[in-house]
Amino acid sequence: MYTIGIDVGGTSIKAGLVREGKIIYKCSKDTDRLGGADKLVEDIAYVVDEIMKSNEITKEEIKSIGVGIPGVVAKSGEVTCVNLGLKNELLSKKIQDKFENIKVVVENDATVAAVAEHEYGSMKGYDIGVMLTLGTGVGGGIIINGKPFSGAHGVGSELGHVMISSNYYDCNCGNNGCFETFCSATAIIKYAQKLISENRESIILGYAENNIKNITARMVFDAYREEDSVAGEVVNRFKKYLAMGIVSIIHSIDPEVISIGGGVSNASDIVLDGLSQMVNDNVIFNGAGIPDIVIAEFKNDAGILGASAL
Amino acid sequence: MYTIGIDVGGTSIKAGLVREGKIIYKCSKDTDRLGGADKLVEDIAYVVDEIMKSNEITKEEIKSIGVGIPGVVAKSGEVTCVNLGLKNELLSKKIQDKFENIKVVVENDATVAAVAEHEYGSMKGYDIGVMLTLGTGVGGGIIINGKPFSGAHGVGSELGHVMISSNYYDCNCGNNGCFETFCSATAIIKYAQKLISENRESIILGYAENNIKNITARMVFDAYREEDSVAGEVVNRFKKYLAMGIVSIIHSIDPEVISIGGGVSNASDIVLDGLSQMVNDNVIFNGAGIPDIVIAEFKNDAGILGASAL
Repeated sequence: MYTIGIDVGGTSIKAGLVREGKIIYKCSKDTDRLGGADKLVEDIAYVVDEIMKSNEITKEEIKSIGVGIPGVVAKSGEVTCVNLGLKNELLSKKIQDKFENIKVVVENDATVAAVAEHEYGSMKGYDIGVMLTLGTGVGGGIIINGKPFSGAHGVGSELGHVMISSNYYDCNCGNNGCFETFCSATAIIKYAQKLISENRESIILGYAENNIKNITARMVFDAYREEDSVAGEVVNRFKKYLAMGIVSIIHSIDPEVISIGGGVSNASDIVLDGLSQMVNDNVIFNGAGIPDIVIAEFKNDAGILGASAL
Repeated sequence: MYTIGIDVGGTSIKAGLVREGKIIYKCSKDTDRLGGADKLVEDIAYVVDEIMKSNEITKEEIKSIGVGIPGVVAKSGEVTCVNLGLKNELLSKKIQDKFENIKVVVENDATVAAVAEHEYGSMKGYDIGVMLTLGTGVGGGIIINGKPFSGAHGVGSELGHVMISSNYYDCNCGNNGCFETFCSATAIIKYAQKLISENRESIILGYAENNIKNITARMVFDAYREEDSVAGEVVNRFKKYLAMGIVSIIHSIDPEVISIGGGVSNASDIVLDGLSQMVNDNVIFNGAGIPDIVIAEFKNDAGILGASAL
């Protein structure tokens, strides 16, 4: 038997055929962001058909279809996803209608990534785990008793919007002090731009061809390795709040493991350096140990693998 | 069969004999804060013996002894409690040694209060619940899948030390911005003292016999009812951060119910007024509903009842 994992992103719908935890075939299709739920279901059906045809397999050989979407999946199954123009859509039912007898599960994409890491990657063998994806925003996925946990209304594990301090700019969500305004790639870029626009000298500006709009988180990490002082300030601020955010997560969920993924985690040497010590120094009680803090194993394939394991 | 619940506090050890969810006998003993673990175990044995003698029951009729303590219970069973001078003490084993064949369970006191509310009170019938006790500090108790949850190392549910914003004074734990520095009775008192010491006029000062050291949270709430402007500012600040803290809890745990207890909850009319609306307005997605926000049912008996149900 096979499972199919589908990773619906803002730019593409990636799908994979999975057997025994390995992706054996992949295909994708551009996301039609304006097409609404019906077009999305049609496109998902298209990639599933494409997988079956190319691999000469029948519906009967597919155990389940898992779908990760960048939005909130309410306990009722209703999906809301601002970026894709979905509001309270019963997505899993609509997909199910196309593929009778195949189990269909739809989940939030960060939760899906947590499932991938828990089933096959950095959180394997742990019972309670938290996944943080540090990218454009900060995503969160929670595993409790070995299972994905997203709370009573599907809004739990939105860890990027846990507030941790006050910040000099508001979050897109309208609140101030959200974790993602300190620890996303966007937050890193914004703070570098702020310091440089205050006329601080930095090699980052050269990397960005003298246009602060071109700055990326990677440039900041590269400059940090060259001991650039602006990069030092930006990275130290990022690390301080990352530690504080993790301490807050410990004081609520206290997982066995925290896995850090997303684009920012590519600078794993910088992200992990001293981080556990900072966390250990700031939890209210560390006598019983703190969570293992690790880097996520899967990058682009986490969505397909996790969705296939839902 | 009976169960015994013991609530170890900083000033007294309260014990109760419980049958079918009702306390049928109570007794207590002063806490010997300097006596260490052995004295505490001796005192617990004393109140248990006193319960058995006064009610003419034998060890065989007692199913379990539950103990709530104001500290951290590590997954190993080791108890650390700064206020009682306990560090990594295997308290349940020591108590067990005194009462062979009776099951002994030791838990954090806020978790115990959550168990009481979940078994018999305001959170009954809910699967995922969070208890917030707003007193001298802010305590937290979490119920997941109907069971108390305190994470992998016993430090989860220390919700008073989740950071939510930056504050004008540091928390006792050494961090800045902890929930309890905004929403405990202590936080309310401190902010009223701060405003009054800045020469703001307030009837609170009269209530406190012209000594700001006498100010209590209750005086602030009483003055709020009299439309005192300082009290208004203090209460509005408290409510704003209470809503933010609850929003953060939703973005991580997203419970079905949040129960507010502790001394501050005595002003339930003021605490609840508009609170759900503020929370609803600030969660990133409210289309699927937000938790019910309620006032805890048990005051002084929560510790005994909850411990007896562990």
